[in-house]
Amino acid sequence: MPAYATNMRMKFPIVALALEIITIILFAVFVVYDDGKSHGHDSHSNETHHEVKPMDLYPMFQDVHVMIFIGFGFLMTFLKRYGFSSVGVNLLLAAFGLQWGLLMQGIWHLDDGKIKVSIFKIINADFSTATVLISFGAVLGKTSPVQLLIMTVLEITIFSINEHLVATVLEANDVGASMIIHAYGAYFGLAVARVLYRPGLRNGHENDGSVYHSDMFAMIGTVFLWMFWPSFNSAIADPGFSQLTAVINTYLSLAACVLSAYAISSLVEHKGKLDMVHIQNATLAGGVAVGTCADMNIGPFGAMLIGLVAGIISTLGFKYLTPVLASNLGIQDTCGVHNLHGMPGILGGLAGIVAVALGKKEGGNAAMQAAALASSLGFALVGGAITGLIMKLPFWGQPPDQNCFDDSIYWEVPEEEEENEESLAHADHSKNKAEV
Amino acid sequence: MPAYATNMRMKFPIVALALEIITIILFAVFVVYDDGKSHGHDSHSNETHHEVKPMDLYPMFQDVHVMIFIGFGFLMTFLKRYGFSSVGVNLLLAAFGLQWGLLMQGIWHLDDGKIKVSIFKIINADFSTATVLISFGAVLGKTSPVQLLIMTVLEITIFSINEHLVATVLEANDVGASMIIHAYGAYFGLAVARVLYRPGLRNGHENDGSVYHSDMFAMIGTVFLWMFWPSFNSAIADPGFSQLTAVINTYLSLAACVLSAYAISSLVEHKGKLDMVHIQNATLAGGVAVGTCADMNIGPFGAMLIGLVAGIISTLGFKYLTPVLASNLGIQDTCGVHNLHGMPGILGGLAGIVAVALGKKEGGNAAMQAAALASSLGFALVGGAITGLIMKLPFWGQPPDQNCFDDSIYWEVPEEEEENEESLAHADHSKNKAEV
Amino acid sequence: MPAYATNMRMKFPIVALALEIITIILFAVFVVYDDGKSHGHDSHSNETHHEVKPMDLYPMFQDVHVMIFIGFGFLMTFLKRYGFSSVGVNLLLAAFGLQWGLLMQGIWHLDDGKIKVSIFKIINADFSTATVLISFGAVLGKTSPVQLLIMTVLEITIFSINEHLVATVLEANDVGASMIIHAYGAYFGLAVARVLYRPGLRNGHENDGSVYHSDMFAMIGTVFLWMFWPSFNSAIADPGFSQLTAVINTYLSLAACVLSAYAISSLVEHKGKLDMVHIQNATLAGGVAVGTCADMNIGPFGAMLIGLVAGIISTLGFKYLTPVLASNLGIQDTCGVHNLHGMPGILGGLAGIVAVALGKKEGGNAAMQAAALASSLGFALVGGAITGLIMKLPFWGQPPDQNCFDDSIYWEVPEEEEENEESLAHADHSKNKAEV
Repeated sequence: MPAYATNMRMKFPIVALALEIITIILFAVFVVYDDGKSHGHDSHSNETHHEVKPMDLYPMFQDVHVMIFIGFGFLMTFLKRYGFSSVGVNLLLAAFGLQWGLLMQGIWHLDDGKIKVSIFKIINADFSTATVLISFGAVLGKTSPVQLLIMTVLEITIFSINEHLVATVLEANDVGASMIIHAYGAYFGLAVARVLYRPGLRNGHENDGSVYHSDMFAMIGTVFLWMFWPSFNSAIADPGFSQLTAVINTYLSLAACVLSAYAISSLVEHKGKLDMVHIQNATLAGGVAVGTCADMNIGPFGAMLIGLVAGIISTLGFKYLTPVLASNLGIQDTCGVHNLHGMPGILGGLAGIVAVALGKKEGGNAAMQAAALASSLGFALVGGAITGLIMKLPFWGQPPDQNCFDDSIYWEVPEEEEENEESLAHADHSKNKAEV
Repeated sequence: MPAYATNMRMKFPIVALALEIITIILFAVFVVYDDGKSHGHDSHSNETHHEVKPMDLYPMFQDVHVMIFIGFGFLMTFLKRYGFSSVGVNLLLAAFGLQWGLLMQGIWHLDDGKIKVSIFKIINADFSTATVLISFGAVLGKTSPVQLLIMTVLEITIFSINEHLVATVLEANDVGASMIIHAYGAYFGLAVARVLYRPGLRNGHENDGSVYHSDMFAMIGTVFLWMFWPSFNSAIADPGFSQLTAVINTYLSLAACVLSAYAISSLVEHKGKLDMVHIQNATLAGGVAVGTCADMNIGPFGAMLIGLVAGIISTLGFKYLTPVLASNLGIQDTCGVHNLHGMPGILGGLAGIVAVALGKKEGGNAAMQAAALASSLGFALVGGAITGLIMKLPFWGQPPDQNCFDDSIYWEVPEEEEENEESLAHADHSKNKAEV
Repeated sequence: MPAYATNMRMKFPIVALALEIITIILFAVFVVYDDGKSHGHDSHSNETHHEVKPMDLYPMFQDVHVMIFIGFGFLMTFLKRYGFSSVGVNLLLAAFGLQWGLLMQGIWHLDDGKIKVSIFKIINADFSTATVLISFGAVLGKTSPVQLLIMTVLEITIFSINEHLVATVLEANDVGASMIIHAYGAYFGLAVARVLYRPGLRNGHENDGSVYHSDMFAMIGTVFLWMFWPSFNSAIADPGFSQLTAVINTYLSLAACVLSAYAISSLVEHKGKLDMVHIQNATLAGGVAVGTCADMNIGPFGAMLIGLVAGIISTLGFKYLTPVLASNLGIQDTCGVHNLHGMPGILGGLAGIVAVALGKKEGGNAAMQAAALASSLGFALVGGAITGLIMKLPFWGQPPDQNCFDDSIYWEVPEEEEENEESLAHADHSKNKAEV
């Protein structure tokens, strides 16, 4: 099977080390510690630089860090045989992505020709990796680590351009990044998934599903994301009452979203049962959807309404839209990122337009908000399509259809367990493990 | 089997959405952001309002948040087939409860007719949900999500009355809430469990036990609760040295408690082995028991003595008292909340009376401490009994005996796994999955 | 089998309770709350005592706390049948160790004859337990809880002497404790493992390996350690820019380390696959190795170079050195602490010597740095050897070879699960469960 050269022995180490060494060289040239003598390019510090201490944002940073590495990593461990890749490749992509993001975001804000690293900057670097981890969800199980490293480089580079456009040129508000992270990451990933469409998986794959314990591991990711989302949406808000507003809006939106996600899950499922896919994902849609307006004066009940609607849309999306996207549009969205990040991200962008139009944010401009949403979607779809084409080149070690959703193609998997799982499932997986 | 209408298709969505919509309406009328211009109704801010910034308590809040959603949620995943419900229904109840708690606690402290949401208030909202999650442990596996939502509404409403009485009328000290959360939540839940007594479970149930991996998941809950308990007990203490005292007392009480819980577990078990039930639960009793005195000047060794005794009492309770409660009093306490929250909560209340009598807290009054303990127990037992009677009404979808402790009655459970578990256990569960 | 009296019924409770009671008595005599009127013995508060508030370091403390209890605890759960012991005994040792560490570290810094407990002091107490948890990794599966409690007492006592020598006498820099915690803990543990050498395990043991789910649990530990390592390395740095520098250096070192660990893992494994042992451990080597220089002006790229090299050395160590240590030197290092803490710790010490020699730390002295490294290694090897000899005394309940790496010798293990695992593994474990 010459088309599938999945042996990573040379490709992966060379790509990974080359990227890291290039990155270190760029850091040597461009990156220094922030000595606190900034010339004020951070919008963040404009109003408050008289009292910000270097470590003030550190607890917020750690919450975001947990979301990136535990939250996204474990959320994707729901697949029965793909847990090593989910949490392990998540770590790889995020660890590289944060370095690359620090460079790509930093070049737009040079200070005496240098990127000065502060806690604010590493929060943003973590943020930039979230776009990749969202897109990773769309192609989970169907891509090689090398393909994903390439996606990381390209997606973060393009993200940084769009972010600069939205924040600095359009001066749009998107404090919790509904548009520039969630919608962008989702549609970028869906575009990649479309380009990498696999007709052979049209009728599903036996490993594309969960077992009891893998669903439990995924709940670790869900709950950490849910808990720390107020930090995500408020970390780069203006210190003080703006930050408090962002925390409270997100806290309440998420709480309301849980109720609607559970209610709709029960409503649409057989005999009123709850479906773990909805619980793991749709309960988070309230955090996505309130992102753009998080620091606006939308009122606690306004935040709750946004969360309520997001939970409904997201659950219905998982139930009715995802199958249609796969069968009719050739978009095989493994984790359903369209339902968790895509539609709720657009909802967040629209809510932001309305809120700004209603004067809920001093100095906001509804047209600029709309332009920001359009820009984010445009960069995502075009950038994702181009990135997908590059990832489709036949020498990046992508797995053949029958080895999708299976750790054992890229990981040493404990042998006894493989045996057990076979005996457990009363099924013959041996064809999946044939030498390819 | 007409008495057991466990199909949740209409009941659950209607109850959940109705509660959420009512809540949103109440929020629209009553709830606003705290703009920092409080008229000083928070006892918290009395002495220190000159320097409190809106986000100062945020890291403490996040620690408490983790205890509520990861701590309680995973602690209850020890049952072999009830992990989805444990962590999933925990999320549901806490997400609704924090909204309801914000309203119920807030109406006692209106400011210009409004409830002003601050970090302090959302910490207290999280606290109010802890009472429900403790009671949930007593009835775990034997109640439907609808029953539990009803319990959430009633328990938090009654809690808020008792809390107001204890804190504002009696002016008793209970910074770590040994009495008003732990003892209250435990005895409320035990009263509910008594009313919902199931003779059919007198001889146990095959699913009422753990497997190796479910015990591991439960340890995630245990350890997060254990680590962040100092935040629970100090979050609403007066800033500065009172808060430091609460942290140190809790840290040391918990550490001493671990040693006594392990020692007694080994002493009472076959061949001196350790029992996971004790390790998962009794190691936390020191955090409960030191709660009332946490910010008092009891000395580090005083805190350690309280922890030492709590670990002993709690472990002995699991070993010798829980079986007696079930067989003689008809109280089937699934998680043993009497041992983790009930007795240690009373111990905490008693320690508070003694400490105040010894002058360890400026301005304390031992009689008021005793009244607070009595009030908490009284509200718990009466409130729990009434709530239990309402929950016993036959149309809330409670599970029949044979489907207790089994996720598959309210959740879509991965099919293959069900097969595996059956084949694994060499047992025929099929009767449990019959249509009911 | 008289040589193996593994029944813990009397030994363990007596040892545990005796240690705790002695500790409480010592606390009653020596330990008080820090009232903020310190005479300035903390090097930490020298420059900044005019503005430090008692709770400033609390979020940092909680991050370190998570590393100790979740990080170390779950990292060691990779063994298929030793998860209860890994996370449970980790809790026991750390809970006792932090009390003992508070005493042992405190006696070098008495203030009016008292140890005044502050957040700074409990961070250091947590740190002292890390040495024991590292050594625990070297002897994991082959020691009884009683042996390990004895090791805890001795290792922390000796650690406190070396720490005092390094910090106060030599005045060496080791902010992230590459030398005094990581290298010390690793070589102490390796010395103990050498003394406790078991020829019977020369050819391995069927339980000395992972299964799929145990590797997933271990990743919880890995990721929490990875995320919070910046807090570990900066917690006791001087507040402000030193602390920021320590955070950024550690963040970047760890990120670079991930890339090199993944690359080398793929390079040395069969068909370029990734090995979970490397991912779980070598990705953390960058945090260890950058510890000594974390608060020095080594530049972001300098930190990344250290991380890159650490990831390479650590992965190669797991692949090529661990088997040699076991077969040629009689050092059976269960978790490979030599690769995660030993070699990277020495690398960190050497990097510190070079950095100080290059003037990257004001007031540093390269000779003192070298003396600190030598002292840490010397105390570790001699202390570990003596401790190993005491632990080898035949009445501490150590397990016989065939019961190594098996929870069921010291824990009640759910019966059904044992059955299942046997049926699963198509193997007869019954000999391991015979009464011994």
